[in-house]
Amino acid sequence: MSGSLVIVGLGPGPIDLLTPAAARALQAATDLVGYGPYLDRIPEAIFSQRRHASGNRVEIDRARHALTLAAEGRQVAVVSGGDPGVFAMAAAVFEAIEAGDPAWRDLDIHVEPGITAMLAAAAEVGAPTPESRVVMTILAEADPALADMRTLVIIGAAATRLVSRKGRRPWVYTPRAEHEAVP
Amino acid sequence: MSGSLVIVGLGPGPIDLLTPAAARALQAATDLVGYGPYLDRIPEAIFSQRRHASGNRVEIDRARHALTLAAEGRQVAVVSGGDPGVFAMAAAVFEAIEAGDPAWRDLDIHVEPGITAMLAAAAEVGAPTPESRVVMTILAEADPALADMRTLVIIGAAATRLVSRKGRRPWVYTPRAEHEAVP
Repeated sequence: MSGSLVIVGLGPGPIDLLTPAAARALQAATDLVGYGPYLDRIPEAIFSQRRHASGNRVEIDRARHALTLAAEGRQVAVVSGGDPGVFAMAAAVFEAIEAGDPAWRDLDIHVEPGITAMLAAAAEVGAPTPESRVVMTILAEADPALADMRTLVIIGAAATRLVSRKGRRPWVYTPRAEHEAVP
Repeated sequence: MSGSLVIVGLGPGPIDLLTPAAARALQAATDLVGYGPYLDRIPEAIFSQRRHASGNRVEIDRARHALTLAAEGRQVAVVSGGDPGVFAMAAAVFEAIEAGDPAWRDLDIHVEPGITAMLAAAAEVGAPTPESRVVMTILAEADPALADMRTLVIIGAAATRLVSRKGRRPWVYTPRAEHEAVP
């Protein structure tokens, strides 16, 4: 079986945060599979692959479709915003494999990491994530009227500080932990 | 004051996981500041900037040195392995600013995110990080004879699964959470 499937992290949005490894994986594909707005981020002038757009909340169907294409011998790239392993498509693909056609296990499959939104947003404001413990979680109880999948809330720690600047946005950072000398 | 300072995430190692934005920030610098082994990752044939290498565990001294160079009008890039906000140099730079020369607050400073080692290692094995809650922490109690700053331990969840394959390394993934339909 000569088909392949790669789950590609597109990063948080700007094309210059797409890694060269991810760009190469997209370029090597014959088919791009993903949620429509993520596919729309990939410039068609550069990436002329066949596109298979689908709606949100159909992750398993999308994964099965991608695996079926790969099993037919296509070179498939499934795209995710941010990183494919953070609230994204990689787990859905492996779930589909485990429950699906045993032949899918023989496919050449890999994951291309991406800059996850948390790191990009944190970089925008400074260095807010505490050194001792960084937690990423889903706001399962969030009111959809106030927050959706494009919403990112960064909560620092009790020690998080603002560095004020005259006439400019302050920096936000969390001081390093006491155990910085841990090797 | 025309100096600038950017804290650049080099990613986990392979040059094709360095973002184009980070590469451009390195190229625009006059001076590269960092822990020696991280500077050594940056090809001298492409990046001919002046280099200021220092040892591990001198983060604040390194940050002050970089800020001093920037205050002299240099374009300084401080490099971090992975992402600058995850157990890396960004917090040290902001700590040095808050405690240091008030003129440092007028410098043009920003952070370029990078692929953090956790995401790259997770991608290597499949999709092990649980969707509902991802925690990155320092193994503060780790025995230095067994683990150092190059050690990464990924712990999934009770639901984490192996997908076995004949004659090949299994994939590791954590099924998506029940609340996948959260918008």
